[in-house]
Amino acid sequence: MANLRFGVVGCGRIGKLHINNLLNNIEGAEVIAAADPMLDKSGAREWLAQRGITNASTNYMDVINNPDVDVVMVCSSTDTHCEVSMEAVKAGKHVFCEKPIDYDIAKIKALLALVEEKGVKFQVGFNRRFDHNHKAVADAVKAGKIGNPHYINVSSRDPEPPPASYVAVSGGIFYDMMIHDFDMVRYLSGSEAVEISAVGSCLVNPNLQEESGIPDVDTAVVTMKLANGAIATINNSRQAVYGYDQRVEVFGSKGMAADQNDLNSTATITTVDGALSEKPKWFFLERYNDAFIEQIKFFIDSIVNDKPTVVGAYDGLRPVLMAAAATESCRNGGVWVKVAE
Amino acid sequence: MANLRFGVVGCGRIGKLHINNLLNNIEGAEVIAAADPMLDKSGAREWLAQRGITNASTNYMDVINNPDVDVVMVCSSTDTHCEVSMEAVKAGKHVFCEKPIDYDIAKIKALLALVEEKGVKFQVGFNRRFDHNHKAVADAVKAGKIGNPHYINVSSRDPEPPPASYVAVSGGIFYDMMIHDFDMVRYLSGSEAVEISAVGSCLVNPNLQEESGIPDVDTAVVTMKLANGAIATINNSRQAVYGYDQRVEVFGSKGMAADQNDLNSTATITTVDGALSEKPKWFFLERYNDAFIEQIKFFIDSIVNDKPTVVGAYDGLRPVLMAAAATESCRNGGVWVKVAE
Amino acid sequence: MANLRFGVVGCGRIGKLHINNLLNNIEGAEVIAAADPMLDKSGAREWLAQRGITNASTNYMDVINNPDVDVVMVCSSTDTHCEVSMEAVKAGKHVFCEKPIDYDIAKIKALLALVEEKGVKFQVGFNRRFDHNHKAVADAVKAGKIGNPHYINVSSRDPEPPPASYVAVSGGIFYDMMIHDFDMVRYLSGSEAVEISAVGSCLVNPNLQEESGIPDVDTAVVTMKLANGAIATINNSRQAVYGYDQRVEVFGSKGMAADQNDLNSTATITTVDGALSEKPKWFFLERYNDAFIEQIKFFIDSIVNDKPTVVGAYDGLRPVLMAAAATESCRNGGVWVKVAE
Amino acid sequence: MANLRFGVVGCGRIGKLHINNLLNNIEGAEVIAAADPMLDKSGAREWLAQRGITNASTNYMDVINNPDVDVVMVCSSTDTHCEVSMEAVKAGKHVFCEKPIDYDIAKIKALLALVEEKGVKFQVGFNRRFDHNHKAVADAVKAGKIGNPHYINVSSRDPEPPPASYVAVSGGIFYDMMIHDFDMVRYLSGSEAVEISAVGSCLVNPNLQEESGIPDVDTAVVTMKLANGAIATINNSRQAVYGYDQRVEVFGSKGMAADQNDLNSTATITTVDGALSEKPKWFFLERYNDAFIEQIKFFIDSIVNDKPTVVGAYDGLRPVLMAAAATESCRNGGVWVKVAE
Repeated sequence: MANLRFGVVGCGRIGKLHINNLLNNIEGAEVIAAADPMLDKSGAREWLAQRGITNASTNYMDVINNPDVDVVMVCSSTDTHCEVSMEAVKAGKHVFCEKPIDYDIAKIKALLALVEEKGVKFQVGFNRRFDHNHKAVADAVKAGKIGNPHYINVSSRDPEPPPASYVAVSGGIFYDMMIHDFDMVRYLSGSEAVEISAVGSCLVNPNLQEESGIPDVDTAVVTMKLANGAIATINNSRQAVYGYDQRVEVFGSKGMAADQNDLNSTATITTVDGALSEKPKWFFLERYNDAFIEQIKFFIDSIVNDKPTVVGAYDGLRPVLMAAAATESCRNGGVWVKVAE
Repeated sequence: MANLRFGVVGCGRIGKLHINNLLNNIEGAEVIAAADPMLDKSGAREWLAQRGITNASTNYMDVINNPDVDVVMVCSSTDTHCEVSMEAVKAGKHVFCEKPIDYDIAKIKALLALVEEKGVKFQVGFNRRFDHNHKAVADAVKAGKIGNPHYINVSSRDPEPPPASYVAVSGGIFYDMMIHDFDMVRYLSGSEAVEISAVGSCLVNPNLQEESGIPDVDTAVVTMKLANGAIATINNSRQAVYGYDQRVEVFGSKGMAADQNDLNSTATITTVDGALSEKPKWFFLERYNDAFIEQIKFFIDSIVNDKPTVVGAYDGLRPVLMAAAATESCRNGGVWVKVAE
Repeated sequence: MANLRFGVVGCGRIGKLHINNLLNNIEGAEVIAAADPMLDKSGAREWLAQRGITNASTNYMDVINNPDVDVVMVCSSTDTHCEVSMEAVKAGKHVFCEKPIDYDIAKIKALLALVEEKGVKFQVGFNRRFDHNHKAVADAVKAGKIGNPHYINVSSRDPEPPPASYVAVSGGIFYDMMIHDFDMVRYLSGSEAVEISAVGSCLVNPNLQEESGIPDVDTAVVTMKLANGAIATINNSRQAVYGYDQRVEVFGSKGMAADQNDLNSTATITTVDGALSEKPKWFFLERYNDAFIEQIKFFIDSIVNDKPTVVGAYDGLRPVLMAAAATESCRNGGVWVKVAE
Repeated sequence: MANLRFGVVGCGRIGKLHINNLLNNIEGAEVIAAADPMLDKSGAREWLAQRGITNASTNYMDVINNPDVDVVMVCSSTDTHCEVSMEAVKAGKHVFCEKPIDYDIAKIKALLALVEEKGVKFQVGFNRRFDHNHKAVADAVKAGKIGNPHYINVSSRDPEPPPASYVAVSGGIFYDMMIHDFDMVRYLSGSEAVEISAVGSCLVNPNLQEESGIPDVDTAVVTMKLANGAIATINNSRQAVYGYDQRVEVFGSKGMAADQNDLNSTATITTVDGALSEKPKWFFLERYNDAFIEQIKFFIDSIVNDKPTVVGAYDGLRPVLMAAAATESCRNGGVWVKVAE
């Protein structure tokens, strides 16, 4: 079978990550075109050339209009995700779009409708669903091993905060960071959040709001009432000094499924001071490296074998709706906010 | 130094537990008197006699008025805790009172004032503070090892639900079960809850409310804003089929302190099916056996060496105030309720 | 049913431990007599009196000849274990004897014969068989969960070395320390050692041999060929600075059963320096406290319900034969030595 | 800096593994030539062409004589490792040679001498030294964190036995399987084995000796006296049904460093049946995947920056000497055999 031919829009950190994976770690794919407005200023053109990708443009429409491209991979800046995806879908391409699709609900819904109309495959980059640990928990839940879920807890903490200038344009912690955890709750529970309450503080950086110019927080706890009666909580911190802390727990009528962090090594040194083990892996590139690869393998499989994608356009919409509700709640003292449809 | 002479009021399960510990596992104490209204009907008189305790009465005032009694241990039914304690304090006895002191805030406050006036030692039976695991976490927090606490999570699940008839008179899950966890949050954070939001469902027993006649829940999640800016959550379930699940986690500016359940054994059997380890210990008698003993040792030490008790009357008051706020919140859809002073 | 009446010979550390357990933690037993040659010099008479044991003698025959005594518990110095046990068995008493019975094989065999002739219950104090962790491993092996055992490893390390003066009279590491581990190999494998090779060094105390006056070692590794074809190893050290290290592993055709140390607590503190957990419990009193109690409960059960004892006289003989073989091997450079019958 | 140009001799499973890693996962390297006598029969020529390696020959001298080749990677059949390496060193190439170099001590020593004379870089494929877990243990030992090593234990078990026909030509378990563990003992202890005793049984396949035609075993335990006074043990099994079991432990005067297996995931499912965690990764490709890459990175670094290789020719010699001693010991009932110089 011929390789799927990818065109990549956006050659920043995440675009390069995907390109390297497509070239080195994924069977059945090749990268035949790329686009980035900063191609020549950022050194990306040279970087691509070293990998044999010479069809590179500053205009993403060149990728989309390339008749040899089967799949468009959208890794551009967040504010362009939706528009690039729309164009690619219109052109009949399959699309892999980094998260979030957009912050504008109407635009996401328009994209959803178009994807359905065109019948192309569309997948959103919620890579954590493909993490070996979280997936094992979700698979156990789906297999009924813990019965009906009653309580879900997601702990998700970054090793270091982004600069306030980034926060200023990120939409805040619920859109920028917790969006993954909203997806995780959906993935683990198999249910939808109906109402959300969010509270938070600036405990990592007490000056965050002045510095960023938005009423954001760096420590947040969200509680959700799910449609199936279960309750879910998420806790986020912008700074866990010991590394990237990513753990989930699902408690149900027949038991509990939970995971732990991946560690740098399993070595333990036991002395008079106690037993010292390793810290979690540092950040998402270390922890979710394999998950980034796995998600593309699943995506390719859905195209090649004409299956539904594992994380479709609707899965891109829901976490944004949840982030909107959480943001509103947090800015109003934790009041319960219904998640919009 | 002469032994402290205990008089025990209430010879049910918990009273017998304390008596056995005082006789067998605690130095510097003896039990010289006991009272229980059901003394003759329940077989308690004979049980006491087998342990050499012949000074037994159906009237608790006989214990309190006994001039040889140094300490009154209040293990009677919950609705009498406060009145027995009041009488004992009035009589100048030191008092160890099982939790909760009462559900009536005014009565607890009156007791507090009297304890202060009389200058006796008063300790409430929040035994979990003396658990080797939770204490190690709290000690690490106090020692500054994790910096300023940002987030506290307490998971607390019973192995099997009480009968609905018990729930009917228990005051509900927040007074009866989560009361210990409210204390744990105070113990771990060193701070006070300012506002509380509580949500819950009847997921273990969908008919709980009809059967118990009160608007109670069996699965509950509480979120708290603490005075120091940290956020705390507690999750309770009346039924974790795998046993008594009791874990705490404190996350802060310099790290995280967390504990795990005590297991029946550390043995693991690894086969083609995976690695099978043991379940948590079954229930509180198994898990907190040593903590029941430790708390009395600390209490004796506070009397003998005239130190403040580790868990005083004010520590008995606060969790009741928190339970009141949580109950109100849960019955109103999770609305934020200020914790009364 | 009437209590079993124990008479205790030897009121040193281990005798007091058993007496306290019989008084406080074991149902169906009482202590009615005791003997110790140092009774008045050591303060043991007063210690016994405080516990209501006034029938105390410097002559152990007073315990043995006491017609009210059902069970003689032999906790005297090692060199008298066998003679006291012989007298007690002759007198028709049930006997619990601390390990080792003796170093003289002929004397142990004579005792074995007498026990059989008299039909009394005889148990040796190999308490580790009753440890919750080791027992769970042994039970898994017995239940066939790991198939046929192929390899057994026992790690057994003390937190601090005994004084050289003690080593001088102890018979050396194989009799004094590894004797428990020889029993553990028999317990875990269900098979007998046929040949033994032992090697060792003085790594903890390079002057051990001069100081003790015997050719002993403080670090030892023993390999055994078992009758069932499996291979077993034991490693001993007189000093694990982090505490009492007691772990076993059984590997077989269907899997592996292994245990870990009991820890002071399950708490872990994770910081930039890593994840710090607790050390193992300090020494045998902390780790095997419950096992000391459990073994007596099993012993009482064997008497009351006329069952074979769990650790009989033959189980007392075999480890001594193994220690003899190991000692001979170690003093001859690790040569293979057949275990005598 | 220009890429190092690799020529690969031997394009079987391990050769392909290295080529893929050089192409995809390692910076600063390229593969410009390859050789394999079965090139056309095995499909290797086509496999190479798909990766852009068109300079392929059935004669390994074509790789060695290629003036553009900087490094020869020897992945041919074991019996040719030494001769190919000799030729490559003679030609002044740097050499990475898969283990073992040879079974003939004299030939290895000749190679050693030649490597020294020629001053090229030579590394042997003891990849486990680069495993994140074992390396963390070794680094802790080297850093003095556990003081002087007293006891080393290596557990090393394969998930499934090779066919008897393979065993027939493999040299037996000590050359074929334990060779890695001999290296591990040297790596962890920083010392050399002086005397070795080996015992073994055919417990996995009772007919192994008839089927293979050699007096081999499938379950083996080796004990070693090290030059520094420490004692080391290795246990091997050809079949751990639960997966590849690879753990090391170093015990010393100041503590213990030990590692655990890498698992398929960190997920645990706790139900009434216990807590079920994952099995170890299946075999060496899963467990040591990153180590295969890491060792080449270190090798490249030693060439580029002219440092000694981490695992040199002498490190290739010693494990073969140890395997020889162990084989002799095992075939003579476990007698102690001095390791030749």
